[in-house]
Amino acid sequence: MKLTVLIHCEDQPGIISSVTQFIHGKNGNIIYLDQHVDKEAGVFFMRLESEFDSHLELSHFKESFEQKLAKTYGMEWDAFEDGHKPKMAIFVSKYKHCLYDLLSRHNSGELDVDIPFILSNHPDLKYIADQFQIPFFHVPFTKDIRETAEVEQMELLKEHQVDFVVLARYMQIVSPKVIDVFPHKIINIHHSFLPAFAGAKPYHAAFERGVKIIGATSHYVTAELDAGPIIEQDVTTVSHTHAIKDFIAKGRDLEKIVLARAVHLHVARKTIVYNNKTVIFS
Amino acid sequence: MKLTVLIHCEDQPGIISSVTQFIHGKNGNIIYLDQHVDKEAGVFFMRLESEFDSHLELSHFKESFEQKLAKTYGMEWDAFEDGHKPKMAIFVSKYKHCLYDLLSRHNSGELDVDIPFILSNHPDLKYIADQFQIPFFHVPFTKDIRETAEVEQMELLKEHQVDFVVLARYMQIVSPKVIDVFPHKIINIHHSFLPAFAGAKPYHAAFERGVKIIGATSHYVTAELDAGPIIEQDVTTVSHTHAIKDFIAKGRDLEKIVLARAVHLHVARKTIVYNNKTVIFS
Amino acid sequence: MKLTVLIHCEDQPGIISSVTQFIHGKNGNIIYLDQHVDKEAGVFFMRLESEFDSHLELSHFKESFEQKLAKTYGMEWDAFEDGHKPKMAIFVSKYKHCLYDLLSRHNSGELDVDIPFILSNHPDLKYIADQFQIPFFHVPFTKDIRETAEVEQMELLKEHQVDFVVLARYMQIVSPKVIDVFPHKIINIHHSFLPAFAGAKPYHAAFERGVKIIGATSHYVTAELDAGPIIEQDVTTVSHTHAIKDFIAKGRDLEKIVLARAVHLHVARKTIVYNNKTVIFS
Amino acid sequence: MKLTVLIHCEDQPGIISSVTQFIHGKNGNIIYLDQHVDKEAGVFFMRLESEFDSHLELSHFKESFEQKLAKTYGMEWDAFEDGHKPKMAIFVSKYKHCLYDLLSRHNSGELDVDIPFILSNHPDLKYIADQFQIPFFHVPFTKDIRETAEVEQMELLKEHQVDFVVLARYMQIVSPKVIDVFPHKIINIHHSFLPAFAGAKPYHAAFERGVKIIGATSHYVTAELDAGPIIEQDVTTVSHTHAIKDFIAKGRDLEKIVLARAVHLHVARKTIVYNNKTVIFS
Repeated sequence: MKLTVLIHCEDQPGIISSVTQFIHGKNGNIIYLDQHVDKEAGVFFMRLESEFDSHLELSHFKESFEQKLAKTYGMEWDAFEDGHKPKMAIFVSKYKHCLYDLLSRHNSGELDVDIPFILSNHPDLKYIADQFQIPFFHVPFTKDIRETAEVEQMELLKEHQVDFVVLARYMQIVSPKVIDVFPHKIINIHHSFLPAFAGAKPYHAAFERGVKIIGATSHYVTAELDAGPIIEQDVTTVSHTHAIKDFIAKGRDLEKIVLARAVHLHVARKTIVYNNKTVIFS
Repeated sequence: MKLTVLIHCEDQPGIISSVTQFIHGKNGNIIYLDQHVDKEAGVFFMRLESEFDSHLELSHFKESFEQKLAKTYGMEWDAFEDGHKPKMAIFVSKYKHCLYDLLSRHNSGELDVDIPFILSNHPDLKYIADQFQIPFFHVPFTKDIRETAEVEQMELLKEHQVDFVVLARYMQIVSPKVIDVFPHKIINIHHSFLPAFAGAKPYHAAFERGVKIIGATSHYVTAELDAGPIIEQDVTTVSHTHAIKDFIAKGRDLEKIVLARAVHLHVARKTIVYNNKTVIFS
Repeated sequence: MKLTVLIHCEDQPGIISSVTQFIHGKNGNIIYLDQHVDKEAGVFFMRLESEFDSHLELSHFKESFEQKLAKTYGMEWDAFEDGHKPKMAIFVSKYKHCLYDLLSRHNSGELDVDIPFILSNHPDLKYIADQFQIPFFHVPFTKDIRETAEVEQMELLKEHQVDFVVLARYMQIVSPKVIDVFPHKIINIHHSFLPAFAGAKPYHAAFERGVKIIGATSHYVTAELDAGPIIEQDVTTVSHTHAIKDFIAKGRDLEKIVLARAVHLHVARKTIVYNNKTVIFS
Repeated sequence: MKLTVLIHCEDQPGIISSVTQFIHGKNGNIIYLDQHVDKEAGVFFMRLESEFDSHLELSHFKESFEQKLAKTYGMEWDAFEDGHKPKMAIFVSKYKHCLYDLLSRHNSGELDVDIPFILSNHPDLKYIADQFQIPFFHVPFTKDIRETAEVEQMELLKEHQVDFVVLARYMQIVSPKVIDVFPHKIINIHHSFLPAFAGAKPYHAAFERGVKIIGATSHYVTAELDAGPIIEQDVTTVSHTHAIKDFIAKGRDLEKIVLARAVHLHVARKTIVYNNKTVIFS
């Protein structure tokens, strides 16, 4: 059995030694260990991968860890057994590039998840879902039917036991109710180098300002728009020769790569969120 | 004689043809031509380098160009004779890296300017000016003595016939009076990827926000703080492992490179400002 | 009518003026002009876009240009009328990422070409061709049947009036006979930063050498393996933490982006090949 | 007291646990731990920073570590006490940019080393050494006087108890005798993206090949020219518009940044060399 353990707690002496001894005591072999201390915040973070004899049970390990370590150090932590394929729902609107990219990766075996469904507030991209034989749900979304839509979304997410959601250029605000049920489990791609150009039409704003570099940002969704913990960013150069449509075209390539990287990091359990920021064990 | 001509005007048919014919009629050989049309704004931009027989006089060329071309097309334009070394004043406060970088480049022959003086609101960096044998003026700057300081600055700039000013991490606001006399001739380096993190302490703000990329921006100074036309930007990656002091250290390398590139572009007359944005003929 | 004209010839005085006058004389309005002189080689390059009254005929324009300009200056040149959709064949083997990326772009309207067929030396990726409803031809390729395969390839290319070929990770050498018929019209993606790691298994070689950056290179195919004119390159950082499989995974994203950019440049007629190098009017 | 410990050995179960327990047993508080396993080579690497009560003696720690850990696991290792300023000699020829950059950083407090001397095979840059008040030795180097020169170099290095050497664009081969005495302690900057364009005139070769990206590589010097373990690389874009002199100018900025980063990593003891590659704990 292979486990990945993610820990964070107040920084204190002896944590690393205690954790590694604990793993050793369970006849575990640590095959990866990375730790980080945020000295400003006084917080300790650790990611650890360990192999165990197959007769170790996850529930037993968890109970023991909680009693012997987590309580002592006041840890927030979790342990994940290798081999579990998380269920990833995709929300889209009308833009195709991120959806095509995620589905192509999934179909090529690059992305180790199940995709129970694609949800959209428009019917336009159903044909892509069909191409890849993924169920597609059209859930319209306007101010008037907002609450109904949210209920429908929640039901689909529950029914399909979704683990996390990817907003692949989904052009609607996600309801706080949904965010509450999926804390740091909804991944968005914003088409600017946040915090520059938050909100609508960032490429237009970037063009207007005359920047020489544009970017894309993938982040966990929180109640505040475009202000959640940043997972991944990347940029590309632009110049006066590029019109807004060129910004948009260059941006598409950024968006799909940055979103895919963020999804990979999340799936590989390489992210810990703290203080509205991420620790990325890459 | 070699001339560089910079033109911008309302976009109209036939401009390129008219300009190249004009040059041809003066027995000029065009060795470089780049043009750009901002279709949103309907503005035409051109940069042209041309060689002429030595007996052509610049004043004669200018008069003829104005009469035969500029008036017809309503051009804003200028022509520069090769070989003129512009006079560049440097303003600094206490940070050394940009100053050292500019002076090293100047001393190595990379930067084809004269540096009549370095001005600072602190005396600390006089020893660097001495190392490179450049006159150093200490002009203190506080709210109380603001007007006196501005007068002193203006007198120094006039007396030394300064062509343009580089703010090499000068930590004071430049007076609107000075800006008026040097429109798009004062180059600043801001230690963030503008428009993100304008104002004070951008590295602290970037750390706080948890960005994965930091940047630096060189721009022409206008009355509005950190909002002038951007000349050059660059970025570098950061992660949770970097503390604020690491942001600052990584940023230093960005700042000096980005500022130097902007100064090079300005000196080579490769920049045209329009609509608070730059066209960079690189 | 809108024309794009590509020119190169020995550098001589007066070319730009002559060309722009010629266009002007045809009542053309130049909407884009970029030129370049390779001073080492003494060669002049130009790309020009011009709009004409609709009654101008391309054949007439070409004849006139040839007589009045091209002969005088010894130009190699061509003119292309806007609106012609080039026919692009795709050759693949077993890797999916570049194929998926090209087909997704095509399906999204990003790539303004017709794709008459996909050819592969393996049957594996037929299902992707089916997903996107593109004809798929399985043309096996081994030493023994090499000549037959080449004949079959040539026949398919002719029959479908293919304009250019994209090798989207096609793992076989393209026959010199095919290259001769498609000079600088076959675009390959090589999974290294050429000229480093030419030939087979570049990621393994890069890992072995311990480089800190890996790359991908798109180039026109010539008789010499991996030595044709480079159209586009890009890189990404790696570290000791990345195993060969990580190099390959990171490389996939590079490959598809770099190949797509090269195809875009080719389709937009922004490339001129000279001296086994490219001039890219971007 | 603060110690930095660097370890590598054959990968075996229990190493991390044993090391952290050992540190804990000495009342040390681990403030940083990073480890890496090269699975291809079966080698374990670790970097650890730990704080101890001030009465711990380094020699005592080392003896105990050797007996209780290093022998058991067959470790190659070393421990360094914080606060020791390494002595860094600089070798140059005629290029100024890397020398100016290193001395500026040193003078600004960015680089925590002593610089006992600058050595050059030419007298040209003595004036820069004078500017920064560093001793300068002119040691001519030609085939005829090679052995004498090597002896003189060795004597200077010994006499000044030099810890490591930086070749800041030193255009001579370093003698194998000197390399033997400073194994992985001589840092070179090569002006290409190695392994592309090893040897002389890399910018000319890059121009000739028509690459779209150029690079710089900092590596430890080994007997084989430009083939030592790579510490740091970076790249920048070029295009057909850049002549060789532009490659050289753009390259200068790369070279000085890449060399400085490598020196920083070495000084901070963040590098381990194994199998002609580096593990960089950044």
